Amino acid sequence: MRPSGRTASQIRPVTITRNFTCHAEGSVLVEFGNTKVICNATVEEGVPRFMKGQGKGWITAEYSMLPRSTHTRSAREAARGKQGGRTLEIQRLIARSLRAAVDLSMLGENTITIDCDVIQADGGTRTASITGACVALVDALSHMRTKGLIKTNPLKHMIAALSVGVYQGNAISDLEYIEDSEAETDMNVVMTDTGKLIEVQGTAEGEPFTFEEMHEMLELAKHGLRELFDIQKAALN
Amino acid sequence: MRPSGRTASQIRPVTITRNFTCHAEGSVLVEFGNTKVICNATVEEGVPRFMKGQGKGWITAEYSMLPRSTHTRSAREAARGKQGGRTLEIQRLIARSLRAAVDLSMLGENTITIDCDVIQADGGTRTASITGACVALVDALSHMRTKGLIKTNPLKHMIAALSVGVYQGNAISDLEYIEDSEAETDMNVVMTDTGKLIEVQGTAEGEPFTFEEMHEMLELAKHGLRELFDIQKAALN
Amino acid sequence: MRPSGRTASQIRPVTITRNFTCHAEGSVLVEFGNTKVICNATVEEGVPRFMKGQGKGWITAEYSMLPRSTHTRSAREAARGKQGGRTLEIQRLIARSLRAAVDLSMLGENTITIDCDVIQADGGTRTASITGACVALVDALSHMRTKGLIKTNPLKHMIAALSVGVYQGNAISDLEYIEDSEAETDMNVVMTDTGKLIEVQGTAEGEPFTFEEMHEMLELAKHGLRELFDIQKAALN
Amino acid sequence: MRPSGRTASQIRPVTITRNFTCHAEGSVLVEFGNTKVICNATVEEGVPRFMKGQGKGWITAEYSMLPRSTHTRSAREAARGKQGGRTLEIQRLIARSLRAAVDLSMLGENTITIDCDVIQADGGTRTASITGACVALVDALSHMRTKGLIKTNPLKHMIAALSVGVYQGNAISDLEYIEDSEAETDMNVVMTDTGKLIEVQGTAEGEPFTFEEMHEMLELAKHGLRELFDIQKAALN
Amino acid sequence: MRPSGRTASQIRPVTITRNFTCHAEGSVLVEFGNTKVICNATVEEGVPRFMKGQGKGWITAEYSMLPRSTHTRSAREAARGKQGGRTLEIQRLIARSLRAAVDLSMLGENTITIDCDVIQADGGTRTASITGACVALVDALSHMRTKGLIKTNPLKHMIAALSVGVYQGNAISDLEYIEDSEAETDMNVVMTDTGKLIEVQGTAEGEPFTFEEMHEMLELAKHGLRELFDIQKAALN
Amino acid sequence: MRPSGRTASQIRPVTITRNFTCHAEGSVLVEFGNTKVICNATVEEGVPRFMKGQGKGWITAEYSMLPRSTHTRSAREAARGKQGGRTLEIQRLIARSLRAAVDLSMLGENTITIDCDVIQADGGTRTASITGACVALVDALSHMRTKGLIKTNPLKHMIAALSVGVYQGNAISDLEYIEDSEAETDMNVVMTDTGKLIEVQGTAEGEPFTFEEMHEMLELAKHGLRELFDIQKAALN
Repeated sequence: MRPSGRTASQIRPVTITRNFTCHAEGSVLVEFGNTKVICNATVEEGVPRFMKGQGKGWITAEYSMLPRSTHTRSAREAARGKQGGRTLEIQRLIARSLRAAVDLSMLGENTITIDCDVIQADGGTRTASITGACVALVDALSHMRTKGLIKTNPLKHMIAALSVGVYQGNAISDLEYIEDSEAETDMNVVMTDTGKLIEVQGTAEGEPFTFEEMHEMLELAKHGLRELFDIQKAALN
Repeated sequence: MRPSGRTASQIRPVTITRNFTCHAEGSVLVEFGNTKVICNATVEEGVPRFMKGQGKGWITAEYSMLPRSTHTRSAREAARGKQGGRTLEIQRLIARSLRAAVDLSMLGENTITIDCDVIQADGGTRTASITGACVALVDALSHMRTKGLIKTNPLKHMIAALSVGVYQGNAISDLEYIEDSEAETDMNVVMTDTGKLIEVQGTAEGEPFTFEEMHEMLELAKHGLRELFDIQKAALN
Repeated sequence: MRPSGRTASQIRPVTITRNFTCHAEGSVLVEFGNTKVICNATVEEGVPRFMKGQGKGWITAEYSMLPRSTHTRSAREAARGKQGGRTLEIQRLIARSLRAAVDLSMLGENTITIDCDVIQADGGTRTASITGACVALVDALSHMRTKGLIKTNPLKHMIAALSVGVYQGNAISDLEYIEDSEAETDMNVVMTDTGKLIEVQGTAEGEPFTFEEMHEMLELAKHGLRELFDIQKAALN
Repeated sequence: MRPSGRTASQIRPVTITRNFTCHAEGSVLVEFGNTKVICNATVEEGVPRFMKGQGKGWITAEYSMLPRSTHTRSAREAARGKQGGRTLEIQRLIARSLRAAVDLSMLGENTITIDCDVIQADGGTRTASITGACVALVDALSHMRTKGLIKTNPLKHMIAALSVGVYQGNAISDLEYIEDSEAETDMNVVMTDTGKLIEVQGTAEGEPFTFEEMHEMLELAKHGLRELFDIQKAALN
Repeated sequence: MRPSGRTASQIRPVTITRNFTCHAEGSVLVEFGNTKVICNATVEEGVPRFMKGQGKGWITAEYSMLPRSTHTRSAREAARGKQGGRTLEIQRLIARSLRAAVDLSMLGENTITIDCDVIQADGGTRTASITGACVALVDALSHMRTKGLIKTNPLKHMIAALSVGVYQGNAISDLEYIEDSEAETDMNVVMTDTGKLIEVQGTAEGEPFTFEEMHEMLELAKHGLRELFDIQKAALN
Repeated sequence: MRPSGRTASQIRPVTITRNFTCHAEGSVLVEFGNTKVICNATVEEGVPRFMKGQGKGWITAEYSMLPRSTHTRSAREAARGKQGGRTLEIQRLIARSLRAAVDLSMLGENTITIDCDVIQADGGTRTASITGACVALVDALSHMRTKGLIKTNPLKHMIAALSVGVYQGNAISDLEYIEDSEAETDMNVVMTDTGKLIEVQGTAEGEPFTFEEMHEMLELAKHGLRELFDIQKAALN
C-alpha cells in the first residue's frame, strides 16, 4: 500500500555514524533511508549577550540543505542573501528541542552550536536532524568533560524525533518524500526516552484531521521513537 | 489561582470590530483582553508566479508587531532589514490556516493578503490574529462576490485559534503574557467550526509534557474554540 | 471648491487621544480627518554610541505605514528588507523636529524613541505624526520626572506641523489625499507655539511656485498651526 | 566676519567644466570653492515599469560621496550594504528638481540618469550637484537631438540651487563646511531661471528661525541664484 | 621535512567517488587527503538573461564550506546574509575554469550549475573542487546526451587544478593546511590534460617570490597535474 | 597592429598627480591613457578587531567604479545593496599587494585605508589602482612620520602593477579596453622595484595558453614595470 511496501508503523532503516568529520567536537552522519544529514556539534566558550553573567550555557542550531540535496536544485540561501522561513522554523525547532534535553545551568558559560546540513533529502529531514543531533550533542558533552569544561553530565534524557502523518486515509510512520508530498496531514513529534513530549507539530496539508487521527498518529510516533532510542543507544556504545 | 482570577477553562473577553479601517476589503480589530490586532484583508488580481495558469487563487499573510506593542520596545524589523524567525513562523501559520478554510479553486486567479499588525500585545497574538483574520477574510470574500470576482462562496468552514498550556501543573486556556512567560508548556490549536483540527503546535518551554496533559489541553482548546466561533458569528450578523 | 467643501484655510477635525496603548511611556492616537497615526514614545536609558559621555540625551523617531493604510496595498518594508527613501526622509524630519523642542542637555543620558505608525492614511501623515508625537513626548517627559530620571522639564516649547499647498491655483491648508495628489505645490511647515519656524519644506509637484505663493502658504500654515496648538493644549489638560 | 572673508551675499568662485569624462552623454565637473562634484548624465532607452506605455520619459538621479571626500573618512555605502537616509534624501531632491526642468512628455520613452559623485566636499554638495547636473542634462538632451531620439528641446527652463543660512545671527549665502556646521539655520533653494521656486527646504539646526529670517534667506538665495544662472549660461556657450 | 613526510613533489592520496548523492545529474565526492568536497552538477533548461537568444549554453558554480569543515567554526554565510569575498573569488574561479573545458556553443540553451560544498577542509579546497567538478561535469554531459539534450560531446579537454607553493624556502606540491598557513607563496594552477594553462594565480603571502621560484612551482604543478588526470580517467572508467 | 598603433611592449602614457584632493593623507590621480583612478589613502588610529593587541598596523583597500566610468552605465553597488564579486576580488588584490610593500610591525596600531575610485575606465583599472595607490601610500607614510605616528619608514620597496596578455596570438603589454575585451589571455602582474613578484594572475579568457606564452607575458610585464617604477619615482621627487 505504501510506495515502499512498508507497513503503516514501519520506519526506514536508520544508521548513525559517529566521528563523520574530523574537526567538530561531535560529528554524526544520520541516515533515515535516503535522507542523509551531517550533524556537527561545536563547543565554544562564552554565551550570547542576552545570557551573559547568569552562569548558564546555551545551545543553538543551524539547518541548511545543499542546493542539490533535492530532486530539483533549490537556490543557495547564502547567494540569495537570506535564510527562508522554512529554514528558520526548522532550526528554531532543532535548537529548542536540544535545549530541552540538557540542564543548561550545568553547562557553564559555554555555547554548543549544532549544524545540521542535509546532503540528500527524501522526507523527514528535520526529524532526522534532531535524532542525529542528539548523538552529536552527547559526544560534544563527553568532549567537554574530558577537557574539564564541565564536571558532571548535564544530559537530562535523550531525545529523538519522528514524522508521522495521514496518507490515503491511514496513519503512517516516517514518511518519505513521495508520501509526504501527498499526505493529508503531517505531524512531527519530538519525545524523550522517558516517554514525554517535547514538541508536537501537526499540520493539515489538505483536509482537516480529527481528534481521533491525532491520537493514532501520536501512538505511531511513540512506537517508532522507541526504535530510534534503541538505535541511538547502540550507536553510542 | 490564575493571575487574572480566571478559571482554567475561561477565556478572556473577546471583541471583534469590523470595518476598523476604511481602505481594506476586510478590516477587523480583534481584542483578546489586552491583546489587540488589526487584521486587514486585501484582494488583488493575479497570483504569485508559481501559481499562474492553474485557475486557482491564493491566500497569504503577513504579521508584525508595532515596536512598542510590548512591555519594552523591540527593534522595528523594517529598520533591522529583515523579518525574524518568529515573525516568519507566525505568518506562515496564519496563511496556512486560512488557506485551509477556503476552496482555492473557487477563488479565480486572485490573491487575498491578510496583514495582521499587533498594536498591543498581552499573549496569544498569533491565535488572536487567526481568529480575527478569518472574519476579515469573510468580509473580503463578500466584497469579491459584490464585485463579481467570484460567484459562489468559497469558504469551506470558519476557523479560529486558541492558545492553551500547562501552567503551575494545570492545563489552562487562553494564556495572557504573565502566564505564557512562565508556562511549562504552550500549545496553539487551530480548529474548524466543524470540530476538526487544522494545526496543533505544542512546545515544552520548561518540562516535557505527558500524553495525558496533551489530551487535557486539546479538550480545553476544543471548549474555548466553540466560544470563539460564537463570537465570530455574532460579529458577522 | 475643495472636494470636502472646506474653505481654503480650514483644517480637518483633529482629535488627540492620549494613553492609546498601555505599554509606552507616551501613547497618542492622532487623527486629522481620516488620517490616523499611533505615536508611541519610549524612554530608554543610554544614548547612541556617538553621543556617549556628553551627559546629554537623544531623541529619535521611526515612521511606518501599515501596508493597507492606503487605497491599494503597498509592500511591507520589513518584508522587502529595507526602508524606502520616503520613510527615511519622514522619520528624519520627525526626529529633527522633536529634538528642536527639547533641551537635550537636560535629558540625562537617556533616549526617547518616537514610533509613528500610520494605521489609516488620507494625506498629511508626516505632519499629523509630528503634531501627535509632541503630545506623546510631553507624556514621556512627565513619566521621566515621575520616575526621577529628570528633575525639571526640558521642553522648550510645543511644536506642531501642518501641510499647506497650492491646489487649482489657490493656497489651501491641511490637504487631504485627493487634493495632495493633484496639488501643484506641497509644503510642510513645522512651527513652535512661540511662532517660530523649525522646518519649511516646499516642493513644486507640477508647476514652479512664485515667491508670493510661498508667502501665502506660510500665512495659512501660521494660522492653522495656532489651532493645532490649542488642540494639543486641550488634550494635555 | 565670515571665516573666508566673504560678504554675506557673496558666493564662492564657481566653475563648470563640461565633457569632464568621456563616456557619458553629459559630463560636468562643478566646483563651488572646494566643493567638487562630477555630474554624469546617461541616456538609456526605456522607462521604469511604473511609467511604461505612457509615451513619456523619466529622469532619475543618484548621489554619493567618495569615502574620503570629507575631513575624516566615512564608510563606503556599497560596503555597508545600503544607502543612508541622507543620501536617499539628496538624490530624491536632485531627481525631483531636474524633472521639474523638463517636459517629460517630450522625452519619448527614454530615461536620463544623473549620477552626482562628490569627489571633494566643503559644504553645499547637494546644491552644487543640482547646479552642475542641469548643465549635464542640457548636454544629454543635445545628444538626444543629435541622435534623433527627440525632435525638439524639452527643457522648460534652467534650474540651479544654492544654500543659504543663518550664521551668528546673520543671513548668509553659499555656506562652506565651517559655516554650515555651526549655522543656526540651513536652507536649500532650487529656482528656475524665470525666477520661480522648485524647492525650499529650511531647517533649524539649532534655534528656530523667524518668518523674517526666512524672508531674508530667500532674498539672498534669489540674488545668488541669478549669478549661478549666468555661470551656467557662460559654460554652455 | 614536510609535516606529513611527503617529498616536495608528492601529492596526497586522491580519491574520486562518483554518484555520491542520488539526485544530481553528476555527483562526485573528491578527497585530497583530509580535504573532502561534494561536487554536484545540475542541468537545467534555459540560460541567464544576458545569454538568451544566442543558442549557447552556460556553466556556473557555487562554493561553500560547511561551518564546521574547519578547525574552528566559521559563521554560516546564509545566516550572515552574504557570501564573503573569498567565496565569491573561488566560485568565479571554478566556473571560469569549467567553462574553458567546454564548447558552450554545443550545449544548447542549457545551464549547468556546479555546487562545490566542502564538508572537511585541510588546504587546497578550491583546487580539489575544480578537479572533482570536472568529473561531475562529464557525468552531467553524459546525462544530457542520454536525454537527447545534446548530440555530441562538447567537452574540449579535461581540466584539473593543483596548489603549489614555497614553504621554508622550497617549492612543494599540494599543500595541506599546516603548510599553507605558513607558506611564503601560494599558487593555484588550472591546467588542461593537453598540457596548457587555464589559470595561474600566485600570491606572495609573506616574502615576494623570484621569477625562478615561479618557474619551479609551475614545473611541480605540471607534474602533479598529470597524476590528477590519471586519477580522473581511472574514476571515469 | 594594435588598435592604438602601439608596439607590443609599449605602455600607454602614464601620469601621476599627487595631492589631487585636499582631505586625504595621500591623494593621487593616476592615469594610464584614458583610464583614470583617484587613489586616496586615509590614516586612522586603531586596527581591526582580529589585529588588536599585536602592536602591528594594517592596510586595507576599497575599489569602486563610478557608474558611468564605463561605455554603458553599470548599476551603482550602493544602490544594489552589495559589492559584486569582481569588486571584492579587486580590492582584496589591491590590499594584499600594498601590505606586501610595508613592514606592518613598524606601523604601530594604525590602519591605512586605500580607496581606489575609477572615474574613467579604459582597461587595466586594477593595475593602475595599485600603481597609483603605492604613491598615495608613500605620502600617507610621510604624513605619519611628520605627525610622529611612526619614527622610521616602514616601506620595504615600491610596488607597481601592469596587465599583459595574449591578443591575436601575440603577447602585448598594458591592454586597453578594446584589446582586453578580445584578448585570449589576460594576466595581471604585481612586482616590487627590486624585481620580485607579489602577484601573478593569468586567466585564459578564450583559448588556454602555453607555458611559453606565460613566459613571454612575464618578460613583457617585467619590462613595462621598470618604466612604471621610474614614473612613480619622478612623481615622488
